[in-house]
Amino acid sequence: MSLFDDLIPTLITETPAQGRELAIMIARKTIATMQPDADVRGSLRPDYAEDSAKLMQAGEIVAIEFATIAAANNYWR
Amino acid sequence: MSLFDDLIPTLITETPAQGRELAIMIARKTIATMQPDADVRGSLRPDYAEDSAKLMQAGEIVAIEFATIAAANNYWR
Amino acid sequence: MSLFDDLIPTLITETPAQGRELAIMIARKTIATMQPDADVRGSLRPDYAEDSAKLMQAGEIVAIEFATIAAANNYWR
Amino acid sequence: MSLFDDLIPTLITETPAQGRELAIMIARKTIATMQPDADVRGSLRPDYAEDSAKLMQAGEIVAIEFATIAAANNYWR
Amino acid sequence: MSLFDDLIPTLITETPAQGRELAIMIARKTIATMQPDADVRGSLRPDYAEDSAKLMQAGEIVAIEFATIAAANNYWR
Amino acid sequence: MSLFDDLIPTLITETPAQGRELAIMIARKTIATMQPDADVRGSLRPDYAEDSAKLMQAGEIVAIEFATIAAANNYWR
Repeated sequence: MSLFDDLIPTLITETPAQGRELAIMIARKTIATMQPDADVRGSLRPDYAEDSAKLMQAGEIVAIEFATIAAANNYWR
Repeated sequence: MSLFDDLIPTLITETPAQGRELAIMIARKTIATMQPDADVRGSLRPDYAEDSAKLMQAGEIVAIEFATIAAANNYWR
Repeated sequence: MSLFDDLIPTLITETPAQGRELAIMIARKTIATMQPDADVRGSLRPDYAEDSAKLMQAGEIVAIEFATIAAANNYWR
Repeated sequence: MSLFDDLIPTLITETPAQGRELAIMIARKTIATMQPDADVRGSLRPDYAEDSAKLMQAGEIVAIEFATIAAANNYWR
Repeated sequence: MSLFDDLIPTLITETPAQGRELAIMIARKTIATMQPDADVRGSLRPDYAEDSAKLMQAGEIVAIEFATIAAANNYWR
Repeated sequence: MSLFDDLIPTLITETPAQGRELAIMIARKTIATMQPDADVRGSLRPDYAEDSAKLMQAGEIVAIEFATIAAANNYWR
């Protein structure tokens, strides 16, 4: 049983907007998995949210996850 | 209801140019979502716009978003 | 005989969640292969887990591996 | 009306060489869009052109744009 | 005659594990090609193997090469 | 007339090895296009060849170009 079971039961979403939300959620949860200590994550967050270079690193991850989800949904065509 | 509903109702655009605009908009709004405090974003922007390394990080995100949108539109062939 | 034989017998998984776990595992094992000394890896880990920039580098690798695995599974559609 | 209308009327080119030129142009114009002040861009350029790390960042963006354009043209097969 | 002829006669492998090994080998040999001086490479290696940021840069390259090889093999489905 | 006409008449190659050489050549020539002053490029090269982080940046660009060329050649299957 994977801790992602509840988080990603499927890559299929009804709309592009929901696909985008899913991409952001997956990116965040993966970081959480790799750093399971909430206190450490908490201490990392301000850094992450206030440094534009890191915000853009996060934006790139979301872009890659979204590409996968968009393909999965046949681009909601 | 997702805050992206109004922003990305669809990935389909009439022209490559509109697809490019959409890629830029999606990249910007994702950053905004991850840093919802407008004051902090405002203080980040000059940094982002005047540092060529960060401008290029932004350019890479846009390139990845555009790849997804172009595929969604079957490359406007 | 490859040391990946036991780790990646297949890219096919039953669920997106298992695909995500596989992406994380493959990313980790590749790092381990390139730095086979466990002591050195051990000394690297705290750095990796507490520095948000490196956590996000790791997140990007996982995103790329997941894209491959998702395609392999035809997105679990 | 988008400011990209004149720049990217189409992703289709006659040759791989023209596709490459288009990739470089799109990458440059996107940077210009995100930093519309020509004086600031001018002051950024020397930095961009003389720092090998930034040149390679630019090269990576062009590689991603070219991948999209090549797919659009069915690889000029 | 290319120096890659012996290294990459084909992208087709029997198993995902062999595909992974090929991805790692190709990534390494490309670095070697760009820096043909073995002494310089030797002096670079400890740096590469002990710095977690660089290890992850290497991991990202391998992830991209593996994506290509996996597609070539139709994901060993 | 594009300066890439002689360099990339086609993306089709006979072998994966030739495709790899093409990927490396395209990556190099793009850098050259963006920094046309040979003296500046010359002064950049040692830096590029001796710094493992930059070598890996170059390796990532080659990996992306190779992905495009491999797809163009239907992976030489």
